Amino acid sequence: HAERIVLGHGSGGRMTHDLIRTIFQAHLGNPYLNAGNDFAHLPLSLGKPDIGHLAVSTDSHVISPLFFPGGDIGRLAVCGTVNDVSMSGAIPLYLTAGFILEEGLSLESLERIVRSMRIAAEEAGVVLVAGDTKVVEKGKGDGMFITTTGIGWIPPDRPPLGGACAQPGDVVLLSGPIGDHGIAVLSARGELGFETEIQSDVAPLNHLIQALLQSAPHTHVLRDPTRGGLATTLNEIAQQSQVAIRIEETAIPIRPAVRAACEMLGLDPLYIANEGKVIAIVPPEEADAALAAMHRAPYGAEAVRIGYVESQPAGRVILRTMLGTHRILEILSGEMLPRIC
Amino acid sequence: HAERIVLGHGSGGRMTHDLIRTIFQAHLGNPYLNAGNDFAHLPLSLGKPDIGHLAVSTDSHVISPLFFPGGDIGRLAVCGTVNDVSMSGAIPLYLTAGFILEEGLSLESLERIVRSMRIAAEEAGVVLVAGDTKVVEKGKGDGMFITTTGIGWIPPDRPPLGGACAQPGDVVLLSGPIGDHGIAVLSARGELGFETEIQSDVAPLNHLIQALLQSAPHTHVLRDPTRGGLATTLNEIAQQSQVAIRIEETAIPIRPAVRAACEMLGLDPLYIANEGKVIAIVPPEEADAALAAMHRAPYGAEAVRIGYVESQPAGRVILRTMLGTHRILEILSGEMLPRIC
Ligand SMILES: Nc1ncnc2c1ncn2[C@@H]1O[C@H](COP(=O)(O)OP(=O)(O)OP(=O)(O)O)[C@@H](O)[C@H]1O
Ligand SMILES: Nc1ncnc2c1ncn2[C@@H]1O[C@H](COP(=O)(O)OP(=O)(O)OP(=O)(O)O)[C@@H](O)[C@H]1O
Ligand SMILES: [Mg+2]
Ligand SMILES: [Mg+2]
Ligand SMILES: [Mg+2]
Ligand SMILES: [Mg+2]
Ligand SMILES: [Mg+2]
Ligand SMILES: [Mg+2]
Repeated sequence: HAERIVLGHGSGGRMTHDLIRTIFQAHLGNPYLNAGNDFAHLPLSLGKPDIGHLAVSTDSHVISPLFFPGGDIGRLAVCGTVNDVSMSGAIPLYLTAGFILEEGLSLESLERIVRSMRIAAEEAGVVLVAGDTKVVEKGKGDGMFITTTGIGWIPPDRPPLGGACAQPGDVVLLSGPIGDHGIAVLSARGELGFETEIQSDVAPLNHLIQALLQSAPHTHVLRDPTRGGLATTLNEIAQQSQVAIRIEETAIPIRPAVRAACEMLGLDPLYIANEGKVIAIVPPEEADAALAAMHRAPYGAEAVRIGYVESQPAGRVILRTMLGTHRILEILSGEMLPRIC
Repeated sequence: HAERIVLGHGSGGRMTHDLIRTIFQAHLGNPYLNAGNDFAHLPLSLGKPDIGHLAVSTDSHVISPLFFPGGDIGRLAVCGTVNDVSMSGAIPLYLTAGFILEEGLSLESLERIVRSMRIAAEEAGVVLVAGDTKVVEKGKGDGMFITTTGIGWIPPDRPPLGGACAQPGDVVLLSGPIGDHGIAVLSARGELGFETEIQSDVAPLNHLIQALLQSAPHTHVLRDPTRGGLATTLNEIAQQSQVAIRIEETAIPIRPAVRAACEMLGLDPLYIANEGKVIAIVPPEEADAALAAMHRAPYGAEAVRIGYVESQPAGRVILRTMLGTHRILEILSGEMLPRIC
């Protein structure tokens, strides 16, 4: 083909999914990869009795600018990977980081970012065990890119958890207000055209997830609504589980400043990236306990119930609007905000 | 500081080491990272009886051009990480890959590279279990960068192995001729100014390493002489082990075409990168068995003994030249060939 990569291939929406399916899964596919979760769930048996499993996840971070209200690329790189590993129910233990530095980057910026990684890693309780450092000529990169990989341990008795495990009757929980990260990055780029106090929500969610799983051990799905936002992530789950997910517009928390920014820019907050939020889908009998656990945990004070799972129409996400009408929420198509993570 | 990143920080020599020490280890340091090996050696006990350890390694790949004689960035990304994991004595099992794609990259190139990753992974017997895909605007990247992380399993009874384990009396082995990769990349860039048949040596060494360890189970050090070449890698080992390493210039295999290219360009082949070679430092009583095992294994047919380890002068690498004189081989300083891996 004479086709070329465009920015939309990095959106996290339909174009990213199609590229992953037609190129990466087509050639590199295997059951671990094809599961399509935030993490790979890997057996550790090696001929021995079952001693648990590994959860492994990787993300490359290309956010621009490197510093934004509430965080920087270093904090993002640690939290993003800690969170994806945590979505498996694993306890994240180890991180690796590959740095691609552009010639001309100031050592002061690099040092600030590395310090910030240290703070985030300490908060999450993970250790950076291996790294790599490459430099590209000026104009062949953009300050710095950081690729982190995380390894966690899944206890042998953990019930299955993943995007394919949602069941009709389940309750959909969300750990707090959406859209903060994407709007904070736009504001750092000066693209808002006005001042806002919005800070990125970038945070490690592993302690919140552990608390949630303690109280709701039969949790079916955990996923962080990053690129593509809440709407796209719910669509991924609806597709993987072949269920319908129904959510209430009035139940979705959005800060007034985020709502205002989205209105001015013509953006839909349901498609804006988050970096410190989790969607939890739990059986109805554990929903109250799960919500209470989130409320007590760090970064979960504003957790709410936003909807529920039904069997039909399978693969669909349906929003009941403020007006009481119903709207199908599609997966993000095209590209919304490039380079936000 | 007002200091900035320069290409030499990515050379793999003194500037890279200083940057890692003063910025990365200073803020993120811990015993796993500070060991300074190709891999991190991680306990898997988790409160259970010793059931083995993990070996983990990561490398970002920024090679330019993406395709070169004997390989491409995809093969390099798989082999580079398989090799670093293998240097621990581990059996590499799992890989992750983060892709940073530049807008405008042709899907055809991407697909060729992904196919090539598949072939290399199959040869090595590793499975790609997780990935990530980001896109940056034209002019903010360079075609594509790939960061791979590898996970391997180290049996609980494996004797310690690493850069700090060389001992006086040990024998230094090298798996084949040096400099092929660096010269092949220069030739692909058209920087040689003449034709050469040299192909990169990029290859997965895990089967060779397993064969070697079967025959020489008390091997002390394994390391692949990548950026900075044979001379820099031997210096790293001499430093970590606080020993002297003495090598014979006449014993070091260099293909005539590589020697010719180096002479024309004023390059020293001892500092040119390799991507399919290993240095093995073994106790004298296992040296013959190790060499014989390498000769029988894939990519080891041209393995040779190149020197030995002494106690003094600690931290030094000394070359006995063709003329019988002695020359201290320093670590690579400044920058030699940028973007060769
Ligand atoms: N940015 C970094 N942060 C922390 N540790 C790093 C960083 N870069 C490298 N290291 C560590 O420094 C050591 C040497 O890394 P280096 O990349 O030179 O080794 P290598 O991968 O074997 O060589 P190459 O990258 O040339 O293939 C390793 O232990 C690695 O984990
Ligand atoms: N280039 C790739 N090759 C193979 N698998 C990939 C690739 N990119 C993504 N994947 C896989 O696709 C799934 C979705 O990846 P994605 O990056 O969208 O998830 P995420 O990391 O949770 O989201 P984000 O990157 O926005 O934080 C994961 O299972 C991931 O392993
Ligand atoms: Mg995720
Ligand atoms: Mg992620
Ligand atoms: Mg490296
Ligand atoms: Mg190495
Ligand atoms: Mg390496
Ligand atoms: Mg990702």
